[in-house]
Amino acid sequence: MMHMSCFPRGFFTCIGRDGKVFDELKYVWLQGRQVWMYCRLYRTMDRFHKPEILEAAKAGGTFLRKFARIMGSGGQWKCAFCLTREGKAVKIQRTIFSECFYVMAMDELSRATGDTDMQLEAEQMMEQLIYWVQVDSSGLGRPHLPGDVPTNSMAVPMMLLCLVQQITEGRGQKVAEKYRDLGNWCVQQILQHVQRDGTAVLENVSFDGTELQGCQGRLQNPGHALEAGWFLLQYSTQWGDKELQKTAISKFVEVPYQSGWDKEHGGLFYFLDVDGNCPTQLEWSMKLWWPHCEALVAFLMAYQQTKKPELLDMFSQVYEYTFNHFPDAENGEWFGYLTQEGKVALDFKGGPNCFHHFRSICGSTA
Amino acid sequence: MMHMSCFPRGFFTCIGRDGKVFDELKYVWLQGRQVWMYCRLYRTMDRFHKPEILEAAKAGGTFLRKFARIMGSGGQWKCAFCLTREGKAVKIQRTIFSECFYVMAMDELSRATGDTDMQLEAEQMMEQLIYWVQVDSSGLGRPHLPGDVPTNSMAVPMMLLCLVQQITEGRGQKVAEKYRDLGNWCVQQILQHVQRDGTAVLENVSFDGTELQGCQGRLQNPGHALEAGWFLLQYSTQWGDKELQKTAISKFVEVPYQSGWDKEHGGLFYFLDVDGNCPTQLEWSMKLWWPHCEALVAFLMAYQQTKKPELLDMFSQVYEYTFNHFPDAENGEWFGYLTQEGKVALDFKGGPNCFHHFRSICGSTA
Repeated sequence: MMHMSCFPRGFFTCIGRDGKVFDELKYVWLQGRQVWMYCRLYRTMDRFHKPEILEAAKAGGTFLRKFARIMGSGGQWKCAFCLTREGKAVKIQRTIFSECFYVMAMDELSRATGDTDMQLEAEQMMEQLIYWVQVDSSGLGRPHLPGDVPTNSMAVPMMLLCLVQQITEGRGQKVAEKYRDLGNWCVQQILQHVQRDGTAVLENVSFDGTELQGCQGRLQNPGHALEAGWFLLQYSTQWGDKELQKTAISKFVEVPYQSGWDKEHGGLFYFLDVDGNCPTQLEWSMKLWWPHCEALVAFLMAYQQTKKPELLDMFSQVYEYTFNHFPDAENGEWFGYLTQEGKVALDFKGGPNCFHHFRSICGSTA
Repeated sequence: MMHMSCFPRGFFTCIGRDGKVFDELKYVWLQGRQVWMYCRLYRTMDRFHKPEILEAAKAGGTFLRKFARIMGSGGQWKCAFCLTREGKAVKIQRTIFSECFYVMAMDELSRATGDTDMQLEAEQMMEQLIYWVQVDSSGLGRPHLPGDVPTNSMAVPMMLLCLVQQITEGRGQKVAEKYRDLGNWCVQQILQHVQRDGTAVLENVSFDGTELQGCQGRLQNPGHALEAGWFLLQYSTQWGDKELQKTAISKFVEVPYQSGWDKEHGGLFYFLDVDGNCPTQLEWSMKLWWPHCEALVAFLMAYQQTKKPELLDMFSQVYEYTFNHFPDAENGEWFGYLTQEGKVALDFKGGPNCFHHFRSICGSTA
């Protein structure tokens, strides 16, 4: 799905129907995911423990270290959002996500290679992220505007919780304790998204955990809520938190399934409006590969922990839809984007890279 | 389609299926269009020459003058992208489009009211726009990045040409001559988008007028090309440029129709890839109201100027599709967004405001 380019060795991330490179821009978040995935495959699964997998990951890591990190206007390290084929920065986003995937890549690469410099780099960028999220976000480059009220967008605590899991995994009690407060903070921030007397998970809430006005406040993303669900389940297992486990399953697994499943055509909607209005995202009714991948993890993990048969039924239903609709029977791999009715809407490969597929293998067996 | 709020009087721009206000954010480009449209209706069409129309326009103009213009980080005036209901700035975009619609609103309002301060304000913002586009764009707030090669995106010269028409209209030879160079520059920039030996109009090209690599370079937006077509036709009429008229019709009216019309389901595609790849925009195959409005203007204007029957046939085909698919037979007004097959995909009103409808009445009779 990804092709190696010649030096300086990032990955091409969008491949056309005919297998040709579709676009040469190198998105840092996709590069980071790719490096992370190769390392994880190499490190955790015997059949991928091959030198060429590690080499690909290292080449990607070298590219990232050389080109992705740039000094932002606020005098703080940022990552570019995308780079040219040769590694020149094209765009910087005023968000934290490129940096998050940089951390994931560096941490996992340090595990695969034993390179402690990379681990240090991951930790330094992690400190920077925490500072932006918890102390002062002005280094991200967004001008402070009076109407721009800070919001709790679910992606932020989810991403940080994912990084906490990544950085602490197997590094002992001391490191786990170091990030415990941050982990708990992320969990609390995620739980604030449960609204309407526990009947809905909303994508954006206020920092006090109240509902926001307008379309932004009413937005639901069922696949995202399910993804948060299994992050919470993993965290509850790690710390033996039964209450959190219960909330994760009822609010972040069962609720998004009930509201997000398309009863007419099957599959999970991409976006919904909690009041039943039409979302303003033009792609709201489409069926995307990644919410289905994340749903598979969530349902199976929830079932594994509870043995509740209805969770297995949900898993089976999503499994059936997913494997009946996304795989390309003719040329292999998956399509990424279907219409509401389940017809292939975009036929390229690679844009939807296999990060989510991989998690739906590894995550669900965690 | 738009509801007036109480003081300070911007317009709500998104109305749900049930007629309720959907979202209170006030987008400056939509506010600007609304003011422009009310003034134009008031000024040019007898049945809209009513005090309440002018009052609505003036209230919108007051709101814009009071809240939309803010000092950017580069010490240059910018317009906010959107405002809260009360007028607090929420976001500033690093582009020129909010400012362009501010100019349109102020110029047209000055014509309807005779207020020369507003005309001056329009001209000052216009000077700022020209500076950003032709001299130095750093005041827009995008950091200069080595991989961020300046591109000629069709929207920019189209928008400026539209403003040249707006500002010079009926203001005599001296004003027309003042903006003549800019107008010619816009035309040249637009013509650079004709590529592939004249068989395609591409949305993004280099500043030298060569094709760009990747998805961005291959992108086509048939409705946008048709809109450019009638801008060029109008300009060619104004200056008696027969050669430009010929090019406008063959390259910006006939070519986008041939490549952009969906031969299976009817209607104009939103985006296409010139190599026949799938565009990366998730909404590429959707049918939107505005390309159809702009197409109606383009075909009718082209027919009016040439009397070529095939242009009338194209017009009739687009007309039939448009009026069979977009109007809401039950509750009036139009839907804005259909699936490729022509089913309503998003059912709110107002987001798609009536700016394009209005142009398709007035533009085509110009």
